[in-house]
Amino acid sequence: MRSRDLGIVIGDLEPGENDAITDVAGVRVGHRTLVEDDAIRTGVTVVVPPELPCFAGSHRLNGNGELTGLEWIRESGLLTTPIGLTNTHSVGVVRDALVEHAIRAGNDLWSLPVVGETYDGFLNDINGMHVKGAHAHEALASATGGAVEEGCVGSGTGMICHGFKGGIGTASRVAGDHTVGVLVQANHGRRSRLAIDGVPVGRELGAETIPLPDAPEGAGSIIVVIATDAPLLPHQCDRLAQRAALGVARTGGAGENSSGDLMLCFATGNRGLQETATSIAITMIPNETLDPLFYATIDATEEAIVNALLAAETTTGKDARVAHRLDPDALAEVMRRYARR
Amino acid sequence: MRSRDLGIVIGDLEPGENDAITDVAGVRVGHRTLVEDDAIRTGVTVVVPPELPCFAGSHRLNGNGELTGLEWIRESGLLTTPIGLTNTHSVGVVRDALVEHAIRAGNDLWSLPVVGETYDGFLNDINGMHVKGAHAHEALASATGGAVEEGCVGSGTGMICHGFKGGIGTASRVAGDHTVGVLVQANHGRRSRLAIDGVPVGRELGAETIPLPDAPEGAGSIIVVIATDAPLLPHQCDRLAQRAALGVARTGGAGENSSGDLMLCFATGNRGLQETATSIAITMIPNETLDPLFYATIDATEEAIVNALLAAETTTGKDARVAHRLDPDALAEVMRRYARR
Amino acid sequence: MRSRDLGIVIGDLEPGENDAITDVAGVRVGHRTLVEDDAIRTGVTVVVPPELPCFAGSHRLNGNGELTGLEWIRESGLLTTPIGLTNTHSVGVVRDALVEHAIRAGNDLWSLPVVGETYDGFLNDINGMHVKGAHAHEALASATGGAVEEGCVGSGTGMICHGFKGGIGTASRVAGDHTVGVLVQANHGRRSRLAIDGVPVGRELGAETIPLPDAPEGAGSIIVVIATDAPLLPHQCDRLAQRAALGVARTGGAGENSSGDLMLCFATGNRGLQETATSIAITMIPNETLDPLFYATIDATEEAIVNALLAAETTTGKDARVAHRLDPDALAEVMRRYARR
Amino acid sequence: MRSRDLGIVIGDLEPGENDAITDVAGVRVGHRTLVEDDAIRTGVTVVVPPELPCFAGSHRLNGNGELTGLEWIRESGLLTTPIGLTNTHSVGVVRDALVEHAIRAGNDLWSLPVVGETYDGFLNDINGMHVKGAHAHEALASATGGAVEEGCVGSGTGMICHGFKGGIGTASRVAGDHTVGVLVQANHGRRSRLAIDGVPVGRELGAETIPLPDAPEGAGSIIVVIATDAPLLPHQCDRLAQRAALGVARTGGAGENSSGDLMLCFATGNRGLQETATSIAITMIPNETLDPLFYATIDATEEAIVNALLAAETTTGKDARVAHRLDPDALAEVMRRYARR
Repeated sequence: MRSRDLGIVIGDLEPGENDAITDVAGVRVGHRTLVEDDAIRTGVTVVVPPELPCFAGSHRLNGNGELTGLEWIRESGLLTTPIGLTNTHSVGVVRDALVEHAIRAGNDLWSLPVVGETYDGFLNDINGMHVKGAHAHEALASATGGAVEEGCVGSGTGMICHGFKGGIGTASRVAGDHTVGVLVQANHGRRSRLAIDGVPVGRELGAETIPLPDAPEGAGSIIVVIATDAPLLPHQCDRLAQRAALGVARTGGAGENSSGDLMLCFATGNRGLQETATSIAITMIPNETLDPLFYATIDATEEAIVNALLAAETTTGKDARVAHRLDPDALAEVMRRYARR
Repeated sequence: MRSRDLGIVIGDLEPGENDAITDVAGVRVGHRTLVEDDAIRTGVTVVVPPELPCFAGSHRLNGNGELTGLEWIRESGLLTTPIGLTNTHSVGVVRDALVEHAIRAGNDLWSLPVVGETYDGFLNDINGMHVKGAHAHEALASATGGAVEEGCVGSGTGMICHGFKGGIGTASRVAGDHTVGVLVQANHGRRSRLAIDGVPVGRELGAETIPLPDAPEGAGSIIVVIATDAPLLPHQCDRLAQRAALGVARTGGAGENSSGDLMLCFATGNRGLQETATSIAITMIPNETLDPLFYATIDATEEAIVNALLAAETTTGKDARVAHRLDPDALAEVMRRYARR
Repeated sequence: MRSRDLGIVIGDLEPGENDAITDVAGVRVGHRTLVEDDAIRTGVTVVVPPELPCFAGSHRLNGNGELTGLEWIRESGLLTTPIGLTNTHSVGVVRDALVEHAIRAGNDLWSLPVVGETYDGFLNDINGMHVKGAHAHEALASATGGAVEEGCVGSGTGMICHGFKGGIGTASRVAGDHTVGVLVQANHGRRSRLAIDGVPVGRELGAETIPLPDAPEGAGSIIVVIATDAPLLPHQCDRLAQRAALGVARTGGAGENSSGDLMLCFATGNRGLQETATSIAITMIPNETLDPLFYATIDATEEAIVNALLAAETTTGKDARVAHRLDPDALAEVMRRYARR
Repeated sequence: MRSRDLGIVIGDLEPGENDAITDVAGVRVGHRTLVEDDAIRTGVTVVVPPELPCFAGSHRLNGNGELTGLEWIRESGLLTTPIGLTNTHSVGVVRDALVEHAIRAGNDLWSLPVVGETYDGFLNDINGMHVKGAHAHEALASATGGAVEEGCVGSGTGMICHGFKGGIGTASRVAGDHTVGVLVQANHGRRSRLAIDGVPVGRELGAETIPLPDAPEGAGSIIVVIATDAPLLPHQCDRLAQRAALGVARTGGAGENSSGDLMLCFATGNRGLQETATSIAITMIPNETLDPLFYATIDATEEAIVNALLAAETTTGKDARVAHRLDPDALAEVMRRYARR
């Protein structure tokens, strides 16, 4: 069940073939899901660009989170490693695993991997440190194009979004000659502010059902990875990254204080950037042509969040806590009541 | 006619007494409107904090605009002058007028005034440079608390927003012990993306009626000034400033490439900051308590944009061009159709 | 008298033909000096790139200053206007004059000019607002390549640097295939910290002789404009801009609190950026090749400051205040004492 | 052997009792050195503030490095964990160990530790991943005030600086009522640009002796940790952090492309920031009083680098490579030749 299956269509642009980040040619996604015993509900997800390095940029909506490797992306304009996603307390192990991955691939010098996280400690025994380096390697080995598994999978396994079970979601948009794909790890937001295509779904579907003990209501985070085949320069990647924050806002995110809402955009349209030649011929598209890519990013982010919600299944985890899914029928009924279909 | 008169209520928080930036105690707003001949449709608006300097911060959603004085705000964390707003080509004259204002007030050293702008060249003979320093002084002299005139007034006189006549709008929210007030100079956005409280008003009310000749559709900008009586530190002001961008996003703004979408937040809760003593006793509120102020900022920004649209009158300007207002009856009809009241 | 005439050679790289920012092909500099009556000691300087827009970036060492237009440079990566320099209280009039200049050149839409400043109120009647728009136009009309007049000229007329008479200075370096040129408006620094090629000149040449009344010792600012013919991308321009701050540091600047130390770098190696085509073919040089350009920027900035000091003449201004030049013979003697030649 | 033992005195301010970061009351430093077999030359160093959270800020001179936790420091203005330092490929394991440390200390929610690195792969078998979590715990357990061990110790064990054996260095300055302490992990810079107190030591002491195979000359990084007991606000911590970059510049660092030159400043003058009360009473010192702290930071950074060089011993490591120390007698001779003592 995805957003469009329910008749929820965000914006005017059409999605790509899979309505997924993998619609950007060559982008691959891999998951390693850990569901073991009563309390292990976590995992690793990787997003792998078709070629490294590639131009990249970032944006911070709210910084209560971690996305390693950002200083080098900001300085160099380049993404130099695959992107790893996991839970908050496993960033280090996944980060060092990506170093090992680079070493095995023949990198003789240093590596500054990019690893993001959100907190799954409501459902997952996060302090048990159950993610191992091998899981990251398995996620990398499994990375593939085509349709992307969503919901309670990989790093999204234990996540909660707007008071419903959350997780991984993805979507894409075609804007002229270019495609924008988005993948979210959605673990953010209050129930009461959730809006879908402008409809106040959270208000209609009642009180928060998943209070995190000891955490502020609405605690959580969202990581957004944006890929595009447009030949963006690094500063233009920064611009797309900020637009993902606008998509988060439209679904009711506010960059709450306890949220780590970090956006990373990479652009695959320029290749051969690893050259050590005197100069490299590249292409740029004028700033004047970016608006459709901005709209694509906003709309795909919004839909990716909805897709994460719709794909997630009700999950029982640590201490028998339960995170309920967003019921598609209930959602459809609210959408109809607000004159959407 | 304001948002609430039409039954449009954004978010759960209550507004202050005037539903205006002046609900933050001591904040004053002044306008000097220039409507002369067939082609002069411009002006100056000022926002004056109760005491200077005060802590301040900023955010850039999109930078196709000017807001002078930002480097010192970023460095010092302090707003040291009143805030001037005008059209794009009159930033300099207003800026130097604010320098003169500081000199007359006894400032012996240098002054780095804060002046923002949006482009009114569709309706106004902007290249005629009709704004003079005297107009800025008059706006300052007229600055007052209480209800704030909105729409085609001051620097908002010639502005266009989401394809309708735009201009100045304001709103406020009370969040616990603190008030957040917002004033916008709304000159941004595409018709097709305009949403009000989530309702796709722009799509329903038809095609863009105000194509700017030679400019991209949706060209324009929005300046958002946020005031709060909460004792925020400078970095916390930055955080509120970014939340105003989320309010812009919720009404359909995308930080379009040709838009200068700049946000400035000042906090009046700490006083006596001009002291040259060895140390200054101040108060801060923990980051953990900021969420209600974030929501207040998002919601007040959204309502301020709607208020700007509703207050603006159909305006004929340069070359007999016409910018039509957003018709309240048509808006009310659309809102009803989407089950809002 | 310039740095090299005195045997002071900063770093290992060779300068270009004129040891000036104009060694970057096509870059022009214009000055309009205002020395009138007893108290007018100010002016306007412009730096004009060979083609606009060009890629650009910036850095803030300390923000007690103004450099308009930075938000659009940061967002777009493009410098779209000539760069104007003047005194602190004349930024507005020069900024609006650059708007007029763009209008006269046929720009139909908006203009966001770049104008920087430092404070010359010790020698100049800065509050008299003696700079007029015409002066900016005259500086633009006089802009030319070749040797650049330094010291008490244009916007440098009334400036003070490390307690000596300061002003405009320039220098260049050739790094492989590329040239880096720097122009400073030097009005910053304490006497006691002045170092030239590592020699503690300020300590040796005695106490501060120019205490600004009512201002902290060492008050002032430095604007650094860096030009290069290397085909840098915008984020690489940011990197060069920060290296200029390192050159300021090596001569004893500390980014003092009352200093507006702002750096702007533009790169002329890519042309045709104003195209509105679907895509633009450009060239980049790998980050791995930037170190020589970093060294060139640091060293040229250091030498430009020394050149500003050496070119400046003892000046009497407002209230019969006198700013003494750095005496070349005294400097040479100190350099010898510290085993430099 | 430290800088002052050799008569090298940087700047006018006096150091604190130990001329170390621990002169800021309550700051503790711990090292765990790993020297095993022929090829293990690495370790972990920690810097522990007297109370957490405390206000903090950062600066990036060049981003070819990692310093985890920065997004939350930038957003919240707070340092929430001890600071770990290690080699580039062990950031993850140290980071997760700091998470465990927080869990053991009773933190129920998430932790976003701060861990920095530089690359010791010339002397150390960095890809052998020899640093374990236990080493981080041991470094924390050993953290103490008083004199700080420098040179080839902890995370500095395998580092190289300006072509000499580098490592950990520290220094402090007293500026009025406040103390600034600096600790560096110095692994940066070219031989030819090394300057000590302005003397061109690198040029005098001959060619680079430690070419990193496959790496650019001068590759490496420097992490600078600045502590102060001044009650700085977060944005003021950012300002001190940038001044550390100026100290790096004065000793010949250029933020080379392959360098990760990251600065982190924390301020201990305000306590009780973990309060979840409605408001917290704090103190600030006016921006106008910061210059002495700026000078203290610049000078202490410069001296800390010299101290790192002087404390380091000639080291043989991986593949029998040798990194020679900077010989104090040779240095003293050069200093004398340039009229320093």
